[in-house]
Amino acid sequence: MSVEIQFQQFDSLTLDCGTTLSPVQIAYETWGQLNASRTNAILIEHAFSGDSHAAGIAAADGRTGWWDNMIGPGKAFDTDKYFVICSNVLGGCMGSTGPGSIDPATGKPYAMSFPVITVGDMVRLQKMLIDRLGIGRLLAVAGGSMGGMQALEWAVAFPDSVASVLPIATTARHSAQQIAFNEVGRQAIMSDPDWCEGAYYDRKPPARGLAVARMVGHITYMSDDSMREKFGRRLRNATQFGYHFEIDFEVESYLRYRGSQFVTRFDANSYLYITKAMDYFDVAAGRAPSLAAALEPVRARFLVISFTSDWLYPSYQSIEIVSALRGRNKDVAYCELPSNYGHDAFLVDIAEQTLLVRGFLASTFKS
Amino acid sequence: MSVEIQFQQFDSLTLDCGTTLSPVQIAYETWGQLNASRTNAILIEHAFSGDSHAAGIAAADGRTGWWDNMIGPGKAFDTDKYFVICSNVLGGCMGSTGPGSIDPATGKPYAMSFPVITVGDMVRLQKMLIDRLGIGRLLAVAGGSMGGMQALEWAVAFPDSVASVLPIATTARHSAQQIAFNEVGRQAIMSDPDWCEGAYYDRKPPARGLAVARMVGHITYMSDDSMREKFGRRLRNATQFGYHFEIDFEVESYLRYRGSQFVTRFDANSYLYITKAMDYFDVAAGRAPSLAAALEPVRARFLVISFTSDWLYPSYQSIEIVSALRGRNKDVAYCELPSNYGHDAFLVDIAEQTLLVRGFLASTFKS
Repeated sequence: MSVEIQFQQFDSLTLDCGTTLSPVQIAYETWGQLNASRTNAILIEHAFSGDSHAAGIAAADGRTGWWDNMIGPGKAFDTDKYFVICSNVLGGCMGSTGPGSIDPATGKPYAMSFPVITVGDMVRLQKMLIDRLGIGRLLAVAGGSMGGMQALEWAVAFPDSVASVLPIATTARHSAQQIAFNEVGRQAIMSDPDWCEGAYYDRKPPARGLAVARMVGHITYMSDDSMREKFGRRLRNATQFGYHFEIDFEVESYLRYRGSQFVTRFDANSYLYITKAMDYFDVAAGRAPSLAAALEPVRARFLVISFTSDWLYPSYQSIEIVSALRGRNKDVAYCELPSNYGHDAFLVDIAEQTLLVRGFLASTFKS
Repeated sequence: MSVEIQFQQFDSLTLDCGTTLSPVQIAYETWGQLNASRTNAILIEHAFSGDSHAAGIAAADGRTGWWDNMIGPGKAFDTDKYFVICSNVLGGCMGSTGPGSIDPATGKPYAMSFPVITVGDMVRLQKMLIDRLGIGRLLAVAGGSMGGMQALEWAVAFPDSVASVLPIATTARHSAQQIAFNEVGRQAIMSDPDWCEGAYYDRKPPARGLAVARMVGHITYMSDDSMREKFGRRLRNATQFGYHFEIDFEVESYLRYRGSQFVTRFDANSYLYITKAMDYFDVAAGRAPSLAAALEPVRARFLVISFTSDWLYPSYQSIEIVSALRGRNKDVAYCELPSNYGHDAFLVDIAEQTLLVRGFLASTFKS
C-alpha cells in the first residue's frame, strides 16, 4: 500500500518555553478508515529519529515504514479495524515545523532561533491535528522510546481524549545517563565547525559531527549480546589485523555506515532540539510532587512493555510507571518481554509484542 | 612522598605489526625498596588514560597518583614490603615513546607515521625495563581495565617471569561493544578538522574531538546508578529548565568539564593508538584456538576481580578468564565485588579490594 504524506497548518502554537510559534505545520500519514462513530482512531508516536512514515510504502520515495511489521491489515495495529495516524514531531525535519523550516519573520530557516520545544509541545500540536480530523477521543496512543514519552504525556495532558495508552521501552523521565548520551551527541554536532552555530542551511551541513552522534546512538540501541551475535570480533574483508586506522572490525564498518547514512536523511539542528526535548521530559515536573500524583488524572487503560536487554531504557523505568499507576488504582498491564535486541527490540522483536498489542486493543475497542 | 619520573632507553623494539621502533624510551616511577633477593617487585599497569604516576605526589607538578589509595606504606600494595614499579605504556604521551615522540628519521613527531602497537608490544617493552632493573621474576603484575589486559599478557608471554597476576575489571579480549565505543572516540577525534591527519603538533590540537571522545568514555566508566546518585536530574545553578542549549543539567556540566580537562593532559594521537591496541587485544589470538589453550603456559597464581555495576567490562568477561584458567587446573581466585561505581570502581571502591589484594600478595610472597 502506497502512502501519501499529508499536512495541516495551524495559526499558532504556544510553547512551554513561553514563545508562540506561528504558523505551525504538522506532517502526517494515515492507514485504514475512520469508522462512522469515530471511535477507532489510533495515534502512533515515533521515536527520536522516526517520522510520519510508520507503515506501507512511501509514495514519494518507496521507503517502507519504520513500524511496518506492526501496522497493516491483520497486524498488531490492524488497519482493517482501526484508523491509524502517525505524525512527524514538532522540531523534526520530515514535514513538521522545525529548525529547518522558514521563519516568516526573516524568510530564512529558523536554525538556532527556533524556540526550544518539549514533549508537551509535540503532543499539543498532535492534539490540534486530532481535533481537526474530527476525532474526539483516540482509541489508543502508542509508541516506543520517545514515542512512549509522548504517549504518556497524552494520557496526562488530555485524559478525556484517549482511551488507552501503550508506552513501550520508555521512561517517565530521562535519567542522568540518558541525558549524558544525548549531550555527547549534541556536543559532537556543535563541535563540528560546519555546524556554524546552526546556520548551515545554505552550505554543507555538519555531517561529521552528526555521524559521530549517530554512532553513539546506535551503540546504545543494541545490546552487548546482539552486537556480539551480529559482529563479534569478525574482521572486515581480512583474516588478520590490518594494523591501521581504516576499518578492521565489522562493527566499525557498521557504525561508520550507519553514521554516514543518517547524515543524508536527518537535520543536525533537529537532532539538537529533539534530544533536548527528551532530556527535559519528566511527566511529573511542573504538575505534581511525585510521578504517582502526576498520573492521578489519567483515565486511559495502560499496556506498558519493556525488553529484558534494553539497557538504554531499562525495565526499571517502565516499572516506575506501572507502580505509580497501580498506586492510583489505574488500569495497567505490564509485560517485560525477553529479547536480545536491546532498545531496538521494540522495532524488531515483534512476535510477542504483536500478540500483546492486538489483544489489548481488541479489549479496549470492545469496552 | 614525592616521586620523580625516571626513564630508560633501548636501542630498538620489534612490534607485532612487523615494524622495528628505534630508539624506544620508557618512563616509570618506583616506590619502596627492592630487597636483596629481588623477589619483592610488583609491576602496576595503568589503564587507558593513566600514566606512570600511580602513587604519591609527583615531583614535577604535585599531582597525586591515580591509584594512591592502593599503593603506599601499609596500603594494599604495601611499599614498606614491596618494590612497586609503574611505567607509562608504549604509545602513550607521558614519557614513553608514542606518536608525539620525535621520529629520528625526520626530526619531527611521528604523528600517524607511528607504527600501530599492541598490548603485547607494551608488555615486551616493560619486560626490557624489568630486565634492566635486574629483576628476574616479578612478585606480581596488577592492573585494572587495560592494565588488566597487560597483566594477562604478562602471564602468557612471560610465564617464568611473574609469580602472580591480578587482572581487575578487565577482559581477555575486547567485545564488539567495547570496540564500538572506542571507534566512536576515534571517529570523534579524526572528524575534528584540527586533527589534520594527526599532524597537529606545531599547531592547535583537535581539542573538540578529543573532548567528545572523553565524554563518551566517562559515561561508560560510570554506572546508571552512580550517575543517578551523583547528578540525577539536578539542574546547574537553576530551579527550572533554561530552554536553551547551554548547560542545564549537572551531568552535562560534569561531562563538558571532564572533556575539556582531558584535552590539557592527553595527546589525541595517543588516544587513537592506545584504543586500537585495546581493540586488537585478544590474549588467545595467534596463540591457540581457545582462551583455555592460550592460558596453558601460565605458571602464575591469579586473583581476578570484577565489580557488579561495571557494564563496560562486565563480570562475565572476568568469569571467562577464570573458567579458562580453572579448566587448565591453574591457581585462580575470583571475586566479584559489590559496587555502585561502574567501571570506575577499581579506582575508587577500594575497601574490599584492599583486603583481597593484601592477602593475595602476602600469600604469594610467602610461597
